Amino acid sequence: MCGIVGVVATSMVNQTIFDALTVLQHRGQDAAGMVTSHNGLLCLRKDNGPVSEVFRTRHMKKLHGNIGIGHARYPTAGTSSSAEAQPFYVNSPYGISLAHNGNLTNTAKLKREVFESDLRHINTTSDSEVLVNVLAHELHEEGKLVPTPEDIFNALERVYKRIEGGYGVVALITGYGILAFRDPDGIRPLIYGSRETENGTEYMVASESVALDAAGFKIERDIRPGEAMFFDVKHNVHQRQCTPAKAARPCLFEYVYFARPDTVIDSISVYKARINMGDMLAEKIKREWADHDIDVVIPIPDTSRTAALEIAQALDIPFREGLVKNRYIGRTFIMPGQTVRKKSVRQKLNPVPFEFKDKNVLLVDDSIVRGTTSKEIIEMAREAGAKKVYIASAAPEVRFPNVYGIDMPAAEELIAHNRNVEEICELIGADRLIFQDLDDLIKACIDEKHSDVREFDTSVFNGHYIAGDIDKNYLSSLASQRSDAQKEAVESKSSNDMMHPM
Amino acid sequence: MCGIVGVVATSMVNQTIFDALTVLQHRGQDAAGMVTSHNGLLCLRKDNGPVSEVFRTRHMKKLHGNIGIGHARYPTAGTSSSAEAQPFYVNSPYGISLAHNGNLTNTAKLKREVFESDLRHINTTSDSEVLVNVLAHELHEEGKLVPTPEDIFNALERVYKRIEGGYGVVALITGYGILAFRDPDGIRPLIYGSRETENGTEYMVASESVALDAAGFKIERDIRPGEAMFFDVKHNVHQRQCTPAKAARPCLFEYVYFARPDTVIDSISVYKARINMGDMLAEKIKREWADHDIDVVIPIPDTSRTAALEIAQALDIPFREGLVKNRYIGRTFIMPGQTVRKKSVRQKLNPVPFEFKDKNVLLVDDSIVRGTTSKEIIEMAREAGAKKVYIASAAPEVRFPNVYGIDMPAAEELIAHNRNVEEICELIGADRLIFQDLDDLIKACIDEKHSDVREFDTSVFNGHYIAGDIDKNYLSSLASQRSDAQKEAVESKSSNDMMHPM
Amino acid sequence: MCGIVGVVATSMVNQTIFDALTVLQHRGQDAAGMVTSHNGLLCLRKDNGPVSEVFRTRHMKKLHGNIGIGHARYPTAGTSSSAEAQPFYVNSPYGISLAHNGNLTNTAKLKREVFESDLRHINTTSDSEVLVNVLAHELHEEGKLVPTPEDIFNALERVYKRIEGGYGVVALITGYGILAFRDPDGIRPLIYGSRETENGTEYMVASESVALDAAGFKIERDIRPGEAMFFDVKHNVHQRQCTPAKAARPCLFEYVYFARPDTVIDSISVYKARINMGDMLAEKIKREWADHDIDVVIPIPDTSRTAALEIAQALDIPFREGLVKNRYIGRTFIMPGQTVRKKSVRQKLNPVPFEFKDKNVLLVDDSIVRGTTSKEIIEMAREAGAKKVYIASAAPEVRFPNVYGIDMPAAEELIAHNRNVEEICELIGADRLIFQDLDDLIKACIDEKHSDVREFDTSVFNGHYIAGDIDKNYLSSLASQRSDAQKEAVESKSSNDMMHPM
Amino acid sequence: MCGIVGVVATSMVNQTIFDALTVLQHRGQDAAGMVTSHNGLLCLRKDNGPVSEVFRTRHMKKLHGNIGIGHARYPTAGTSSSAEAQPFYVNSPYGISLAHNGNLTNTAKLKREVFESDLRHINTTSDSEVLVNVLAHELHEEGKLVPTPEDIFNALERVYKRIEGGYGVVALITGYGILAFRDPDGIRPLIYGSRETENGTEYMVASESVALDAAGFKIERDIRPGEAMFFDVKHNVHQRQCTPAKAARPCLFEYVYFARPDTVIDSISVYKARINMGDMLAEKIKREWADHDIDVVIPIPDTSRTAALEIAQALDIPFREGLVKNRYIGRTFIMPGQTVRKKSVRQKLNPVPFEFKDKNVLLVDDSIVRGTTSKEIIEMAREAGAKKVYIASAAPEVRFPNVYGIDMPAAEELIAHNRNVEEICELIGADRLIFQDLDDLIKACIDEKHSDVREFDTSVFNGHYIAGDIDKNYLSSLASQRSDAQKEAVESKSSNDMMHPM
Repeated sequence: MCGIVGVVATSMVNQTIFDALTVLQHRGQDAAGMVTSHNGLLCLRKDNGPVSEVFRTRHMKKLHGNIGIGHARYPTAGTSSSAEAQPFYVNSPYGISLAHNGNLTNTAKLKREVFESDLRHINTTSDSEVLVNVLAHELHEEGKLVPTPEDIFNALERVYKRIEGGYGVVALITGYGILAFRDPDGIRPLIYGSRETENGTEYMVASESVALDAAGFKIERDIRPGEAMFFDVKHNVHQRQCTPAKAARPCLFEYVYFARPDTVIDSISVYKARINMGDMLAEKIKREWADHDIDVVIPIPDTSRTAALEIAQALDIPFREGLVKNRYIGRTFIMPGQTVRKKSVRQKLNPVPFEFKDKNVLLVDDSIVRGTTSKEIIEMAREAGAKKVYIASAAPEVRFPNVYGIDMPAAEELIAHNRNVEEICELIGADRLIFQDLDDLIKACIDEKHSDVREFDTSVFNGHYIAGDIDKNYLSSLASQRSDAQKEAVESKSSNDMMHPM
Repeated sequence: MCGIVGVVATSMVNQTIFDALTVLQHRGQDAAGMVTSHNGLLCLRKDNGPVSEVFRTRHMKKLHGNIGIGHARYPTAGTSSSAEAQPFYVNSPYGISLAHNGNLTNTAKLKREVFESDLRHINTTSDSEVLVNVLAHELHEEGKLVPTPEDIFNALERVYKRIEGGYGVVALITGYGILAFRDPDGIRPLIYGSRETENGTEYMVASESVALDAAGFKIERDIRPGEAMFFDVKHNVHQRQCTPAKAARPCLFEYVYFARPDTVIDSISVYKARINMGDMLAEKIKREWADHDIDVVIPIPDTSRTAALEIAQALDIPFREGLVKNRYIGRTFIMPGQTVRKKSVRQKLNPVPFEFKDKNVLLVDDSIVRGTTSKEIIEMAREAGAKKVYIASAAPEVRFPNVYGIDMPAAEELIAHNRNVEEICELIGADRLIFQDLDDLIKACIDEKHSDVREFDTSVFNGHYIAGDIDKNYLSSLASQRSDAQKEAVESKSSNDMMHPM
Repeated sequence: MCGIVGVVATSMVNQTIFDALTVLQHRGQDAAGMVTSHNGLLCLRKDNGPVSEVFRTRHMKKLHGNIGIGHARYPTAGTSSSAEAQPFYVNSPYGISLAHNGNLTNTAKLKREVFESDLRHINTTSDSEVLVNVLAHELHEEGKLVPTPEDIFNALERVYKRIEGGYGVVALITGYGILAFRDPDGIRPLIYGSRETENGTEYMVASESVALDAAGFKIERDIRPGEAMFFDVKHNVHQRQCTPAKAARPCLFEYVYFARPDTVIDSISVYKARINMGDMLAEKIKREWADHDIDVVIPIPDTSRTAALEIAQALDIPFREGLVKNRYIGRTFIMPGQTVRKKSVRQKLNPVPFEFKDKNVLLVDDSIVRGTTSKEIIEMAREAGAKKVYIASAAPEVRFPNVYGIDMPAAEELIAHNRNVEEICELIGADRLIFQDLDDLIKACIDEKHSDVREFDTSVFNGHYIAGDIDKNYLSSLASQRSDAQKEAVESKSSNDMMHPM
Repeated sequence: MCGIVGVVATSMVNQTIFDALTVLQHRGQDAAGMVTSHNGLLCLRKDNGPVSEVFRTRHMKKLHGNIGIGHARYPTAGTSSSAEAQPFYVNSPYGISLAHNGNLTNTAKLKREVFESDLRHINTTSDSEVLVNVLAHELHEEGKLVPTPEDIFNALERVYKRIEGGYGVVALITGYGILAFRDPDGIRPLIYGSRETENGTEYMVASESVALDAAGFKIERDIRPGEAMFFDVKHNVHQRQCTPAKAARPCLFEYVYFARPDTVIDSISVYKARINMGDMLAEKIKREWADHDIDVVIPIPDTSRTAALEIAQALDIPFREGLVKNRYIGRTFIMPGQTVRKKSVRQKLNPVPFEFKDKNVLLVDDSIVRGTTSKEIIEMAREAGAKKVYIASAAPEVRFPNVYGIDMPAAEELIAHNRNVEEICELIGADRLIFQDLDDLIKACIDEKHSDVREFDTSVFNGHYIAGDIDKNYLSSLASQRSDAQKEAVESKSSNDMMHPM
């Protein structure tokens, strides 16, 4: 997952983009980048690392201009070198920079096409570099020295026909404006807002509404599925529905885990959805386990706290923050001659022993993916003196890989893949395990009063992929990329330096 | 406030110290340092910045040895240059390195003495540099080529007679061991524990018990007020009560705000104390404001969440996390020709609007010091649509400066200094303001079952300074150092580089 | 002026390019860059700074592949930002990287054309970025998925028709090979050589023969004026004469000052040419100043030493190295509140006083451009006790700006512009001033035995520009770019960081 | 060998020290450091690397004060970690910083003494750290709160009695002034000068006179053997002859190789001495090889050029700079899986082939130490086509290690150790080899007109050690430190980072 932002302003835009990326940082701390444009020239800074480290005063001083886009990267189906930090750039036509949140599911085919039809060299394995070239090719086909919004939307309609997957995109067309568009199913979020200044109206488009809040932009509305907006350099806003209009089917995992609680996606409050998840889960516990002997509810921080508190209140059981998260990130140094120490959950969490001592505790997590962390926390709870350790997950069993931009492991590495609840419970060492039902999760997220969303991308739970041609071949090729072994190999090759193999 | 740690181990000690400092990082992110000793040679790394930035692989590779001490700095009554990062070192006698948490209240006098009696040059304004020289002088007076624990304790008794204030100290005496000692009133915390290995017992002494937990050390006990421990290089533990024995009077603010919730100081759980603070405050509200019209309780994250939840439950009012903290730290760049933008609480907190909309909200904070943040948050709550905004503080009015190591502003900058509740309430713009009573706070912290602590350092609340000769002269000299104007002047002179003006 | 290199090898090429750039470093210490290609992917590193600082181990580790090009930059008619470090890259077609030594004299027109004909965005003021786009455009016009050498040379013939100036160029066409070509007059040098290995023949093309020497390549021959060579990835060498064949007219200044003495350009030894310059100048002195009273000949190090020794021997006067060059570069730090101290020649040279004391000294320099340094050295000689100070220049009066890649000042800043010898002599404060005659300089460089060169680019001496359409408009636009005031403005805007505004 | 400097000025002293260190940089590029003092506080910056890299603007901004000392290090008998960069500091008494050029020959004994008598911990293997502690101890013994120059000289007399070897030293006594002193034999150079300003006279003491020249100081005179100067903070100059007065016996190698040609040591011009060396050597050739068939004299740059030119003129043979030095330092990167390539002289020198082709060449070097470089250059000359290759050394056979501060290899690694001329000639592959005679070298350096020096330290040529107790034990312990194998081991442990293990 990644965070993206684009801003058309009436004064220097670098600080605003920096602020927005900081607020979107939870969507990706792996790399960051920004392009601004001033007098027809582009200024780029991108590198591996969190926003606060990538942008120093010396860089900010050079990021001139009133228009620009930014990106915070979470690695998606590929390597993690700084060369693959975004935005990506091609100089023909016009000079186009692009930042992308999501994943294209037909990258291999597109990569071949851009080379064969247009001799365009792709230098990374990033689908975003492919995407900027597809967009560039279609804009070039329009052949306009000075492209109108109509030209741009015409080109984009052809792009929509070629690309598949889930995506939110911002692209800076040097000298003309910022193009923003969202996949036909609205899987990935994208929202825009405006801010009034003495010199006119400014616009921001971003992955999450909190970026608008923090920068003082008023929310206008979510970009619609298959819709494109073009904010030109004169601050006019253009719009076209490029694929048939329909209600969004946003990714459920945004509500479960990914988005910030104070964000509103497609008019659904993430915080409210999480409260509802707690209520639904409490109902299930009451329903299926009326005679439970839970003494205390303890959230696994931070995301699950909202749901856990609801569960405690609904069940009328004490709620205790018995696990304290280490805010400061530890690190294990590899000294010459030493072997790698296993990364332990101990580096992340510390128990408050007397909250566990001689109690039956219900741990609550937002989801269980690999199960390794759950297993370790359960062990930790037992060491802290818990009599029985139950665990509840605010999301159902994660059984299938994500292909729309969330970096989940291959199917074989998902603990719930081909296993039932009992098997999982035994593997993680819990005394009882409760998953949310998928129907309940969907109900928890639907907000009939404020939003017209009734369906979601639920593929990780039920394998139903709503976009692209996701067959076994695709998934097995994805699996080979994402296996832990493969990732380690890639990571050892790339490191956090300043090289931009273009 | 600062975090300190000392470790005598059976293998390389650098990773363990790094881990402990990471866990203690909440006590100071301003600078960090570590000294280790190997074959009688010392290895030092210290610089401004958080632990994760100060120690890189290239530094860790050089921090050889099985014994060492570490420090994480929060600036105390002085400047913030990297030269004042700790540990401090003097080469005579033996080579002594020292790390210190707290503040000496007779530094000026001591500084004169160490120069006049021993010609010792002090190169910074840090009381810790003074302290290492006082200790060095007294050890030198013993005149032993090979000092015994008795010699060291004898010297230390004279140190105790000379220094005043609140302090926890670890000192590495090259070739001999680690000395740890705590002020005669136990104002500042210090605790030690042990870890069994194949090659013998290892010892850690640290500011907070969580450092022991995280590194897998078993808690032995708190160091007693006026007690010194000496962990020698052969892993023998020596002990002496250097001032008359009495129960500790720990700093109340450790429980209110400073310590991690999962820490236990002088056998009092910080988390439990905070729960009790919530209960006490709820009682006060019931007692004094029985007909309140509060719709929702919203904590100001993160510290106050524990108390706020208790208040909500005790009052049977919904609890909502209506303010979301930005985990990633923003920054305002100063571009050439621009003026500094006011740092806004908006960079730190974002409201979830519908939790405020048309509601009477009770905000809960751990304490109110300057009042500026409270004021801004109350404004933010009103902008988010709150009908009425009440605010409760888990601590009483902070009326006096702290002289024992907590970096609080000068008295004039404390909003409660010479003001009553109504005046403060008006200044911060709240519809009602509730402070915890000091007696209630003390009650909240006392744990008769587990701890013999019955009194605390309460000076910031009532001006009763239990250690040192704190008169008007001292406070006014402190004020001139701590005024914001003064601080800015100092900050502009120092910056985060690698220089160590010894 | 710049140094360029291209290598097609049978193993990793990064170290060889690094070595070549180090040897070419005298041609430009301002910035450096390298692109290598491995499995169809490019690896780029470029930044401001000398070669030894730009390439660190962490960069070298990533510069994979057996083929690559490199560049060392001396700023030419433009800014000096790291964004303008070379090689430049465009991804369409094929992915082309290009490094360039020289200057195009019709950049403005070309820049318009590449945008209008191909919508190609140019993001810097560098003529090299324009050039890579012209080349890319013409290659794209060929429209081949797999271009043959014939296709490439066809495209290049059109490039030759469009660009004007003096240039040596290497371009890496990803997946296919390295293209090298030289301007139709052979103003800028370019030479290639070969090295046999177990796995086949390797090729290097470079600005100067010393790069081949240092890397153990055997010199094959200079690239001919208007000739192109293509070294393909299978190590085949292709050649085409793209403009009518003629003898080179190399830049005289390469022999006077720019090239290393051990280099051979167009079969003329730079060292021999400098010896001849000394002989010619001695002849002139004998001819025009038979009764001179020179006591000692002192070179202004380093370049003029060769000629000065010849003069001394021909005149039978002692030769003394009375001025010692500081090998280590000084720097004047600007402290807050200070003004810039004038950069003094004292930072570069130190006199040996007794070599000046009471003597009539003849100082010898390679050339006199602005005259400011000469003036300072003459003052220094007088302070050291010289009775009379004469000065001889191995090159004639520099009266006109250079437009083919040597970064000389605008005409108004040339001391010899519109001044005669007497006026110049008075301005610099010498007792007598002797310039080489242009005919003599040409004679000194011609080597009938080894080389067919009979003419040179002599434009800086006589204003005769042999390439391009150099009229008053061009020169006055150049002047406005190159005036010192303008340069300072540009310099203050750019600094040595890692940003690559593409 | 190292370069040292001390300055007492009337305004900020950092730039002047920086300039002086830059000019002294040829004496050591391994590490650099500076201490300044302002209002009784010290500012220190030291690290591995050349002066230009160690001092950046951010460091210079903090080096406040009008008084300070500096150091440029060439590693001497020890390791090369940044922790051993100078100046060294002890805080008791007064705060003393010290920078040292030379070597103490009784370090081991002194190190024991400072610990046993004063419990002073020494944390490095540097003799300079020992020296600052001996000085500190003796000053402490004086026991003065405010030491007078008499007190300081009294203490120093005792220091002279304890230390042995060759040394030039500057020491900053915080708050009081700069102490400068030179070993009793004047082996290592030290000179001082003055500069008038509006606010009074400024003083600089430095290793070489060129540092004074470059900074605009007028040379006063060399410090005498066994003499101490004290420049107090009020700019008064105090002097005492601390050991019996006698003429200096400076190290011959300063004239042969180490010092800059424009330096004057003990009133002997280095440049003149080198001219004389050439004349003496020419005489020897005429005397012993009247029928030589030398066609051309070629210096091995840079140092030998002066002598080589004299030889050529005296023998009436052409002089040619047939070997060109690479000014820019190459580097061989070690890629993973590669082995270290042998460092070749090719990286340093490039031949001009036609100056060697079919000629009998006489190469001239300043000295032959290990012989490995000579061997490689002779091979290079043959490859370039030389018929016969002769080589002359301006210094006699180097047969013994240096113990007074020049980092020469152990005896076994000296090619002339236990070998005669014929054997050496054969080993290096020359057709004939001529060494200067020691008597001739001494004659070349003596300048009866200007200097009273009649004797020199000639130990590396004849094993006559004039200072200290240099017996077989000492030399064999030195040998074990200096063997190449040992050095590599040490180097691999230390690296260029910012750690200062105090």
